[in-house]
Amino acid sequence: MHIFHSIADLRSYLRLQRQQGKSVGFVPTMGALHEGHLSLLEASKVQNDVTICSIFVNPIQFNNPDDLARYPRTLDADCAMLAPAGCDAVFAPSAEEMYGKATASDGFEPSDAVALPLLKFDFGDLERVMEGQFRPGHFNGVGIVVSKLFNIVQPDRTYFGQKDLQQLAVIRRMMIDLGFQIALHPCPTLREADGLAMSSRNRNLTPKERALAPHIFKGLMLAKRGLISGKTTTEVKLEVAAHFNEQPAFRLEYFEIVDAHSLQTTELRLPEAQTALCIAAHLGKVRLIDNVVF
Amino acid sequence: MHIFHSIADLRSYLRLQRQQGKSVGFVPTMGALHEGHLSLLEASKVQNDVTICSIFVNPIQFNNPDDLARYPRTLDADCAMLAPAGCDAVFAPSAEEMYGKATASDGFEPSDAVALPLLKFDFGDLERVMEGQFRPGHFNGVGIVVSKLFNIVQPDRTYFGQKDLQQLAVIRRMMIDLGFQIALHPCPTLREADGLAMSSRNRNLTPKERALAPHIFKGLMLAKRGLISGKTTTEVKLEVAAHFNEQPAFRLEYFEIVDAHSLQTTELRLPEAQTALCIAAHLGKVRLIDNVVF
Repeated sequence: MHIFHSIADLRSYLRLQRQQGKSVGFVPTMGALHEGHLSLLEASKVQNDVTICSIFVNPIQFNNPDDLARYPRTLDADCAMLAPAGCDAVFAPSAEEMYGKATASDGFEPSDAVALPLLKFDFGDLERVMEGQFRPGHFNGVGIVVSKLFNIVQPDRTYFGQKDLQQLAVIRRMMIDLGFQIALHPCPTLREADGLAMSSRNRNLTPKERALAPHIFKGLMLAKRGLISGKTTTEVKLEVAAHFNEQPAFRLEYFEIVDAHSLQTTELRLPEAQTALCIAAHLGKVRLIDNVVF
Repeated sequence: MHIFHSIADLRSYLRLQRQQGKSVGFVPTMGALHEGHLSLLEASKVQNDVTICSIFVNPIQFNNPDDLARYPRTLDADCAMLAPAGCDAVFAPSAEEMYGKATASDGFEPSDAVALPLLKFDFGDLERVMEGQFRPGHFNGVGIVVSKLFNIVQPDRTYFGQKDLQQLAVIRRMMIDLGFQIALHPCPTLREADGLAMSSRNRNLTPKERALAPHIFKGLMLAKRGLISGKTTTEVKLEVAAHFNEQPAFRLEYFEIVDAHSLQTTELRLPEAQTALCIAAHLGKVRLIDNVVF
């Protein structure tokens, strides 16, 4: 398995693959890999001759500096997982390689090592809700870095997990609006045996918090059963609020019942539309998200 | 010369060129071609095996519906210029091909034939001045369509005229911020014998207006001489205002003395920085822009 830290080295490798007529699959990640990521890699390996996995903790998608500082960085362990799983090449750039070094003419303080992009993305209604509402600027950072990675890798296909449902919707929309000639493959959320959605942030939970964490998925299942049995969205929201009041270790940030396509709040389940139940909750110092679509 | 109206047909052609190891140059235009455009084509032909020219009057970069309606559309004449000049392929999509057809779920009125992008670009300070200030939304439209064309064509090199200096600065910044792996080649403004900058909009001038139009370039030369002779920016701005007061057929929209890199107003000519003098003026129903950099 190749490990590239520079854009130029990765591009040289990719040029060679292209000259041999090979198709390229791309799995963008922030590292701290788990089985969920490996399922994306496996999906790519089935469909492509070559699979590239990027590992980059993107500073500009973190609205909270503590969250950025705490985000796990485990490149060696990640590579030790990817190589036996058949990943062909890892792209692990520094922030400076991705964004360049700031110069005085950028108007930044000398303490800023990295030149921030001037261009800002706004996804309109798609980012006025849920993650976009509670993490201002998050989807701008996601959109910029994913565009940049797409332009560097120029893959045939790319793989994203449904666990970050709003990210998936934002990326899908961006790919349409900017005409990316790449096929987007969403992959289902992988869960631990007790229902907890796999996430890089789970490793920041204390053992006690880890034992409580499946409460989130239980809340989603409670809500799904309620809606299927004919309860109103208001009734279901009250039930979910009560479910979290039972466990004071959690601070519920949002629970939303939305159209799975537009991510806008929905009062009724239309027969032809998919409904998504989306949740974000703080457990100790860790912010967890999850969703189910049905 | 090939003429493609669909993205799929253009992509098939490009795939074939790529398989033969050919390099691709790209000249994006809105048609109504003149010698200025041909100079971009010539620059591309020198550096690339294949040159693609796009002709697309991009509705989302027009803030003024009258301006969009009046913009000349002359595809047959454009192709008749491009073929003998050695253009390999023209890409002339419809608005629907570029943006897709609106559906009810987009929330548009049925009268809107085209699905507008949801994603919006904001270039910050770079678009708070001059064209960006007087044409709100203009550079969002430019950024979206150029991104889309870049992703469709995936050229090695692209060619833009310096006549649209702020557009060039915006595109340059976008290419850095989004990591486009394309070399940007700016090309100098071509002028008529009397100094008028070549522009598709010139053909909308009446003969009387056409005779007056070089007044714009004369104003830029007046300003350049003033600055070189040591006059202050305030003195030079007053001179340019007086120059346009002499010709009541013009309505001066802006005249700015800016840093050619940041496009921000500058009071002093720094020895290491390039200065750009930028102007926009209405002459009858036609809005003309021009600039000099020194």
